[in-house]
Amino acid sequence: MNEAGAITPAELDLASRNHAMPLEALRYDLTPAGLHYLLVHYDIPEVDPATWRLEIDGAVGTPLSLSLDDLRSRPRVSAPVTLECAGNGRALLDPRPISQPWLLGAVGNAAWTGTPLAPLLREAGPSEAAVDVGFAGADHGLEGDVEQDYERGLPMDEAMRDDLLLAYEMNGHPLPPQHGFPLRLIVPGWYGMTSVKWLRRIRVLDSPFDGYQNVRGYRMRATEDDVVGSPVERIHVRSLLLPPGYPSFQPRVRHVSAGRVTVRGRAWSGYGPIVRVAFSADGGAGWADAELGPEPAPHAWRAWSFAWDAEPGPHELCCRATDASGATQPLQPEWNVGGYANNAVQRVQVEVAP
Amino acid sequence: MNEAGAITPAELDLASRNHAMPLEALRYDLTPAGLHYLLVHYDIPEVDPATWRLEIDGAVGTPLSLSLDDLRSRPRVSAPVTLECAGNGRALLDPRPISQPWLLGAVGNAAWTGTPLAPLLREAGPSEAAVDVGFAGADHGLEGDVEQDYERGLPMDEAMRDDLLLAYEMNGHPLPPQHGFPLRLIVPGWYGMTSVKWLRRIRVLDSPFDGYQNVRGYRMRATEDDVVGSPVERIHVRSLLLPPGYPSFQPRVRHVSAGRVTVRGRAWSGYGPIVRVAFSADGGAGWADAELGPEPAPHAWRAWSFAWDAEPGPHELCCRATDASGATQPLQPEWNVGGYANNAVQRVQVEVAP
Repeated sequence: MNEAGAITPAELDLASRNHAMPLEALRYDLTPAGLHYLLVHYDIPEVDPATWRLEIDGAVGTPLSLSLDDLRSRPRVSAPVTLECAGNGRALLDPRPISQPWLLGAVGNAAWTGTPLAPLLREAGPSEAAVDVGFAGADHGLEGDVEQDYERGLPMDEAMRDDLLLAYEMNGHPLPPQHGFPLRLIVPGWYGMTSVKWLRRIRVLDSPFDGYQNVRGYRMRATEDDVVGSPVERIHVRSLLLPPGYPSFQPRVRHVSAGRVTVRGRAWSGYGPIVRVAFSADGGAGWADAELGPEPAPHAWRAWSFAWDAEPGPHELCCRATDASGATQPLQPEWNVGGYANNAVQRVQVEVAP
Repeated sequence: MNEAGAITPAELDLASRNHAMPLEALRYDLTPAGLHYLLVHYDIPEVDPATWRLEIDGAVGTPLSLSLDDLRSRPRVSAPVTLECAGNGRALLDPRPISQPWLLGAVGNAAWTGTPLAPLLREAGPSEAAVDVGFAGADHGLEGDVEQDYERGLPMDEAMRDDLLLAYEMNGHPLPPQHGFPLRLIVPGWYGMTSVKWLRRIRVLDSPFDGYQNVRGYRMRATEDDVVGSPVERIHVRSLLLPPGYPSFQPRVRHVSAGRVTVRGRAWSGYGPIVRVAFSADGGAGWADAELGPEPAPHAWRAWSFAWDAEPGPHELCCRATDASGATQPLQPEWNVGGYANNAVQRVQVEVAP
């Protein structure tokens, strides 16, 4: 839990609107829509699907304007994709950056269905000079003194990847309002801020995207003096475990009976497949390899389990994943100004009764 | 916003699991499932619908054991019902009771479909001596040092009302896991703690129900010395407005352009139909009647609107409903130990630009 001082009213306001995935929902391979984490920068906009259109313009030879039916009549692809908020774990930093105060549940793994982005961009005919693509949503607000429609830029080579989707369905149903109805971008492997919801305009740019959410928001800054920092992009390796036993209402300590307990969880990374998950029942003093589940789809989380012989007394359960790039979760958080990408190992307090 | 001191880690833990309805969702007559408020006391349980059964027993002549198919083959009724958490508004009390720190969005109005409860109770043949009915769910935890399956009792005459439902669908789809799959009770007009989720046992009782959630939880207690207090039951009259304009990311001040603004909202009560909603743009110094929408179904919220001529400068928007019993929302909260039924008028800070 947070040791960085009590939560402010502004943080509570955000925490009551947005929500994490309750960790027992790690049991579902595909996260049900209402349990998937949700982060909305401004208000959920009201969009009329009958008049809605997607504009593709900017540095292109043939600007496109597409209805929802146009998009639905194009090639249809479905894929499970793990999305995680870049701020997941923020409220565990000390001092705590003041923003959406995520603990650990800002994640979900849904099946997204839509049409691939790259063929549409090719049809529009990007300029030889194109360097970035801007994706603008319909949600409107004020952030850092800038009035804006939420918009994120993506480098041209990332935008042309063959696994980016313009998604109109989540888990086989039309997108719920809060997840971007009628259309959102899905960028597998990148933190969720890139997968723009309520998408309505795609701008191909022959100069670097300079919008707020790339240039000022979502920057890794080591100190306040580090004004520029570096961009927040791909998801850092992380694992989570489904807290075993049953909880107290508050505080949410876990209660487990002694004996064999199968601890289950999920692991994921935007830098490559998961190759190892280690489990500790003593706060990280000793580790043992967990058993990995079947190799998942390329950007879906991987199941893992560990057969734990629970002995009476207090325990701190931890898990720690390693991906194919060799990256491993740190034991302690690495602080930064915005509170991004804190992938330190989870710690779950458990009381084992005889 | 809360002026009662900063939120504690235990409250944040609850706030990140459970979630309010974002107030812009007041625009939907029927609240989409993932936007409806959610309060889970313990963990969301995993229920296998193939083996799940509902037991109806206790002081009855003919105990019943019913499968989901048994229930689905019985008479089917759908109704829109406004559910509100008894703790809605708790975090606006001073001092703030430490529990789920709701601001104002712990409400929703979904269409619930299921089979009426009363005919089933009659088939089971309640004893002449029956006084209460206990409704037990599958969620298990520790609360107030009592290990328990969540269970609430209801007086026999309330349980025999003809509008209580054993609901297996929400908005036309099977219940989502977090809203009680496969079956929940719906008690129109009562605070949400009565509409037990993940229902698996109904006990007819010939002595008063003495479970934790009635006898210790959900009591209106004026002071800590008032150990017994009175039960929390029906929903107190309340109205909410959809914050106009657009927000800042944090803090969530609203920005509106000067001129005619149609302010919309909803109002509801467990004590009778809504007969009046008043609107104030100056923090409650002056009030004017809002226009009420069509008479809704008996326990659904009622739409209202007010044509506000927004003049430049800061404004505090308020709304205040009155129901057919004559009850009106208080201007200031009425404090109690558990932080229940705070139906004081909403106050929305708005900056109007010229």
